[in-house]
Formats: sequence, structure tokens, C-alpha cells
Amino acid sequence: MIAEIIAAGSEMLTPHRSDTNSLHLTARLNALGVSVAFKTIVGDNLEHLTSAITIALGRADILLITGGLGPTEDDLTREAVAAALHIELHRSPELLTAMYKRFAERRQTMPPNNAKQADVLSGAEVLPNANGSAPGQWLDTVVSGHRKLILLLPGPPREMEPLFAAECEPRLARNLPERHLARRQLRIALVPESKVDSLAAPVYKKFKDVETTILATAGEIQLHFLCAKPTLAEAQRRVDALASKLEDILGDSVFSSRGESIEEVILLRLEMRSLTLAVAESLTGGLLSSRITAVPGASKVFLGGAIVYNESLKQSLAAVPAPLIAQHGAVSEQVARALAEGIRKQTGADFGLALTGVAGPGPLTDSDGKEKPAGLVYFAASDGRETTTLKKTFTGDRDRIRSFAALQALDLLRRLLD
Amino acid sequence: MIAEIIAAGSEMLTPHRSDTNSLHLTARLNALGVSVAFKTIVGDNLEHLTSAITIALGRADILLITGGLGPTEDDLTREAVAAALHIELHRSPELLTAMYKRFAERRQTMPPNNAKQADVLSGAEVLPNANGSAPGQWLDTVVSGHRKLILLLPGPPREMEPLFAAECEPRLARNLPERHLARRQLRIALVPESKVDSLAAPVYKKFKDVETTILATAGEIQLHFLCAKPTLAEAQRRVDALASKLEDILGDSVFSSRGESIEEVILLRLEMRSLTLAVAESLTGGLLSSRITAVPGASKVFLGGAIVYNESLKQSLAAVPAPLIAQHGAVSEQVARALAEGIRKQTGADFGLALTGVAGPGPLTDSDGKEKPAGLVYFAASDGRETTTLKKTFTGDRDRIRSFAALQALDLLRRLLD
Repeated sequence: MIAEIIAAGSEMLTPHRSDTNSLHLTARLNALGVSVAFKTIVGDNLEHLTSAITIALGRADILLITGGLGPTEDDLTREAVAAALHIELHRSPELLTAMYKRFAERRQTMPPNNAKQADVLSGAEVLPNANGSAPGQWLDTVVSGHRKLILLLPGPPREMEPLFAAECEPRLARNLPERHLARRQLRIALVPESKVDSLAAPVYKKFKDVETTILATAGEIQLHFLCAKPTLAEAQRRVDALASKLEDILGDSVFSSRGESIEEVILLRLEMRSLTLAVAESLTGGLLSSRITAVPGASKVFLGGAIVYNESLKQSLAAVPAPLIAQHGAVSEQVARALAEGIRKQTGADFGLALTGVAGPGPLTDSDGKEKPAGLVYFAASDGRETTTLKKTFTGDRDRIRSFAALQALDLLRRLLD
Repeated sequence: MIAEIIAAGSEMLTPHRSDTNSLHLTARLNALGVSVAFKTIVGDNLEHLTSAITIALGRADILLITGGLGPTEDDLTREAVAAALHIELHRSPELLTAMYKRFAERRQTMPPNNAKQADVLSGAEVLPNANGSAPGQWLDTVVSGHRKLILLLPGPPREMEPLFAAECEPRLARNLPERHLARRQLRIALVPESKVDSLAAPVYKKFKDVETTILATAGEIQLHFLCAKPTLAEAQRRVDALASKLEDILGDSVFSSRGESIEEVILLRLEMRSLTLAVAESLTGGLLSSRITAVPGASKVFLGGAIVYNESLKQSLAAVPAPLIAQHGAVSEQVARALAEGIRKQTGADFGLALTGVAGPGPLTDSDGKEKPAGLVYFAASDGRETTTLKKTFTGDRDRIRSFAALQALDLLRRLLD
């Protein structure tokens, strides 16, 4: 079975935006035993889109089209599929009613152009979109004597991905030979990708039946393992064996062996011990707290904290003595320590976590008269009895330094809670 | 002039690798006045590649093919172009000699399969590759009565980009009418994409010579305008005229007419008036501050603030009176107001900006005994004389509610600084 993915949207023909949906879809299709043979990216142009669809139907068994399902004039996927197949679009009264209701619930009037989102291809099943107004469509049809599965999917990943998982994967699985999939994920903090890769490569050689993917984002590595076998138990055994071999090799830099984020690991460990946390952050300016509070239920253990960007706030919100800043500078181990201990006392939290550093661009002339380079960061974590400190120098631009610093602060706490 | 870019390489049909060369090429082509209408990604398969090239030559004036020029069996671009055009490949003695020399200089023996890199399409010019062994090719030909420019480019960006700049851009410029490009960008906060689109569509009809792109991210819309004309002044006049018509229609929801982010707009306005800012954030848990401090130089006006996630911190860090929370609940206009005024006083900032709400998932039973729904948020901004408040209810998941709330807080302040 061969698939083609068409990404519809003029923005993907600019220098600014590329099609990333096809990567996600390819992974899920591969897992179902389907290869992607072509990808086409086409603008919001009815003639171009119709011709791309016609071409795709001539060479692929499964056609997935992302984007072009919205309410604007530029959203032409439904029309183009209808034109390519010479079939009709019908406006669905049920969808239209649901759309009016959705707008009414938000106390908004539905703009008339939205109605086209209720247009359904003749013979297609409607795929409900839990995260947006444009539903997907599934069409199982025959073109020139060959069976074709045509999937219309919304463009935004946060709509497309859950819709594909809920509505398309089960339908595809029913139409494809049976396979059972097992997945595992290891997550690793603050080890370079090339190092993880060189440690993992020899192990992978013994697991050729497991599909491995390495994803690297600011300071974090994710290793994804996927195995397809006739039975789930067999597939699970293989991914588990691979994960456990790699855990032995990578040691305590692995913070998660089931896919949880480092924030989730920390919050869970704190919650299990009924401990609370407060933070004082300087150079990260809210990024550390924002990562923690992105987790639902964070409020059970996270009390809050202070963004002590300015020196005066280090004193007023986190009780750092002014002479300490004058003597050692705001970017110093002493001030990191005082911030962690200070925010802990100010908030009554069990744990105080703090960091102070230079985000850049460019160095900082600190209050102690010394020049501190961009990327220099001091960390401290205090539980009231003991305060652990750490000094790191990160390279890269402001964004990278801030992300690495936030991750390092989380990893320091994660190791203390081990 | 319409271009198509074909990226050849099976690795780009896996979940792990996407085509990024086309972004670079699109930027350079746009600057020459050439639009990219199609992108095709195809594997290392002679039949697939030949058919993709045939299709592209039927719909584009300029065809750029990246990848497939190496020495391996999988490198099939030369063969596929020859097959699509029914022309011959000739092995160039000069290229072959240069290749042998290159290997000899490294004291290596050239593997025999490398010789195919000396195969040149009949009628093509060879484009020297300063950073690799596979040269590019430039073919100016006629297909079915239409002139076609066909460019064969190496796949690795560090080879492709300098080769394109040195060899292709001058050749393309000589073959294209002289054009100058002007760009503008409008950014709009908290107006639905469909509404912006329906307001803008009638205006676009009068500016068919301006290429427009709409990009939507959490609560923000970006409108990009691009116009190519024989003179820069003419092109600039058109994008400026379009931008100014849309600014009239969209009114004060346009926060930026030159592309600055809303954080940059706020920081600039505060800096120009020598004013400082502090924030107190509840449900956004650091996200608002993190957005502000992501801007280099934010420390000139942003003092910091408090993440008052827990009720006790609203009192200890932002001086909100406990009875106020008990009476109205933490999620209330009164507490938002007290937070903005309190953080202003605690930090000595000129402006205090605050928000309190329910990020979800699920509602909150507040201290006043009332249930507050997920998405309900109160905002306040205080300059010491006056405090402005705002109530909003956002829909969607926790991430969306947090992003919209942070953006709304920024937009409230932006409007006060207008």
C-alpha cells in the first residue's frame, strides 16, 4: 500500500513555513505498514490543488490531504477533491447546526463564510474535530477501477493529530492487514545528541526490528521506539528489552522511561512526598515557572515564586541581603543560594529552587564590578536543611541559554528528588 | 514565472527528515520575482522521480531538483531528467579527470561508482560545486514548445546554498525581467482568523499584484505582504497602500505595522517614556513574564514580578489583603485589581500588570465558595492613578487558555500605552 500526502496552503510555499504534518503522519502510517512514496506541497489555488489530487490518485492507494478545510476563501480542499473526482459537495444540516451552536456557546455570531465547513463530499464520512471547527472527511472510493482511500485532514497539528489518532487510525487498521504496535520512549536531559547517538548505535544493531527515532530539542533528547509484531506481547517485549539496555548505558541522565516530561517527573515525586515548591528566577524570567505550571494539577505542589529580574526585587521578593549582591554580584553562587533559601522562607515552601545568570546577548557588568559572560548561570536548590548549588556556562543565543538554564534547574531538582 | 522544487531522497519520506532546502531556495527565488507553486518530495526510485519530473515540466517554467547527484546507486536525478526529456547523458572527461585529481590529492583511490558524477545532460552547463564532489547542472531547454530552465542541485545545504548563490542566481537574473521586492507585515491580536480574513478579502481584490499570506498562532494573526515591481519605490507604494487600507479597517486591533512582536511594542513604548513594569501572574504561571523577558534588553524596563499561583503568595508577594480573597475569591476582578496595585507598590514599578483565572482542565471551587469555569480570567493594569480591569472567558485546553491569557494581558497594556 502506497500513500501520498498533499499539504495544501500557500504559506508552505513561502520561505517561512514548511510542512511538518507529513512527518507525524508518516510515522503513524509506517506503523500501520504503509509507506509514503510522494509528498506534494501546493498553494491555495483550486486549479493547482485539483491537478495535484488527480496526479496523486493516479499513483497512490491512500491519499491524505492536510489543510484547506477552514472557512476562508483560500480553503479549497473540499472543492478540489470534488472537482478531481467529478463528485458533488453536499452541505450537511447536522454540521451546520453544530457550528451555529458552537458560536452561540461563545456568544458570537457565526460569520457566513463558516458555512462552507459543513460541505461534505458525496459518499464521505465526516470525521469529528474535537479541537477546531473544520471536520475531517474519509472517502473510500474507486478511481479508474482502483480502490482509493482519501482522507481530508485539518492543517493545524493540534487539530490534525488527535483527529487522525481517533478517527483515521482505527479506520485504516480495519482496512489493512493486522499488526500490533508497542512503543516506548526514553527522555534524557543535558547530554549532547551526538553522544547519545554514539552510545545507542551499537545497541540498535541488535534491534533491527524496532524502529528508533531520536528527537533533540533544547537540551533534551527523546528516544522513541516502535515495534510492530503479530502479537502485542511480542512487540512489547522487544521495545522493553531495547529500552532497558539503553537505560543501563545512559544511566541517571535518563529522567523518564515512560515518556513523562521532566516537569511531570518532578511534580509527581514532590506530590508523593507531600512536598511543596517555590522558585526564584532571574535570567529565565518566568520560563522555568511557566514550564512547571504548564502541567495540569501543578498547583498541588507548586506555590509560585518570584521573577527577580531587577536587583531590587531580589531583595524585596526573595529576601536576598543587599550587601551580598554588592560583594559577589547578582550572578554568583552566593546570590543563587540566598535566592533559593530566601524564596523558600518567603513562601513557606518545602523546596526553594533558584537560578541567576546572564541570558545575553553580550556580557553583564555585575554589581561586584566584574564582567560576567553571557551563558554563565548559577543554580541552587534548598530544602531548609541543605542547599545544593551548581555553576554552568551555556553557549548559544538568548533563547538557547534561557531554555538550557530552565532545563538545568529542573534537572538539578529532579536529581535531588531521586 | 512559476517554479517547482523537487526534493529527491527517500530519507525525506521517513518521519525523521523533512526538506528544508526548499525554504532557502524559495526565499532566493522570491527575491528574483519567481514564485514557487509546487513542491514535490520523492524517494530514490527512478520511475517515481522520472514521473515527478515529467509532471513538473508540465506545470512549471523553472524546475529545481535538489539531491540525488551523489555517487551511490540511490542517486538517480541525472538519469531521471534524461529519461523525462528523452535526452542522453555524456560522461565528461574534464569532470572525470578533476574527480580523480581530487581523490589523488587526498591520497585516496576513487571508488568506481563515483564516475557517474561526471555524467552531464546533453546541452547542460556544469555548475562547479566548491564544497563537494557532485557538480550541479543548468539546462535551458524547450519542452512541448515552452522554454524550461532545469537546475540540478546537490542535496546537502552546505553544498547547495553556495552553489546556488554563485552559479544559479546570476544565470537566473540574466534570464528574468528585473524586479524589486517590497515587504510589509501587520500583526493583530485576539481577532479570529476568519474575521480578519473576511475583512481583508475585499481589499485584497484591489491588490492582486501583492502576494498576501495569513499566519495564525495562538490568538495572533500575521498578515504578510510581498510585491515585486520594476522599481522598489513602486513595489513599496503598493504594499504600503495595502497595509494602510487594512490598518483603517482593522483599527486598533493591529498592534504592529512593521512586524514587531507585541512584547517589543510594549517594551519600546515603556522605554520611550522611561517607565518600568512589574507583573503578578496566577494562571499563566510565568508565561507572561517569560514572553516579555524573551526580548533582548527587556531588563531596561521590566523589573520582574511574582508568580502568585498559591493564594498565600498573593498575600505575601503581591500584598493582596486576605479578606478580599475570602470575600470575592482569588479569581475575581477585585483580586486582579489588588494584584496589579500590590505588585506595583511591592516593586516600585510605574506599571503593575496582573491576571488571575482558571487554566483548567476543569473548573475551580474558589475561596468565595463559588465555582469558576476553566477559561475565566480577570486582568488589571495599574499606573498608580488609575487601574483598568477586564474580564474574559477563553475556550480550549489548558495551553490555549494560558497563551490567550498571556496575550490578552499584553494587549491590555499595549492599548493603555497607545
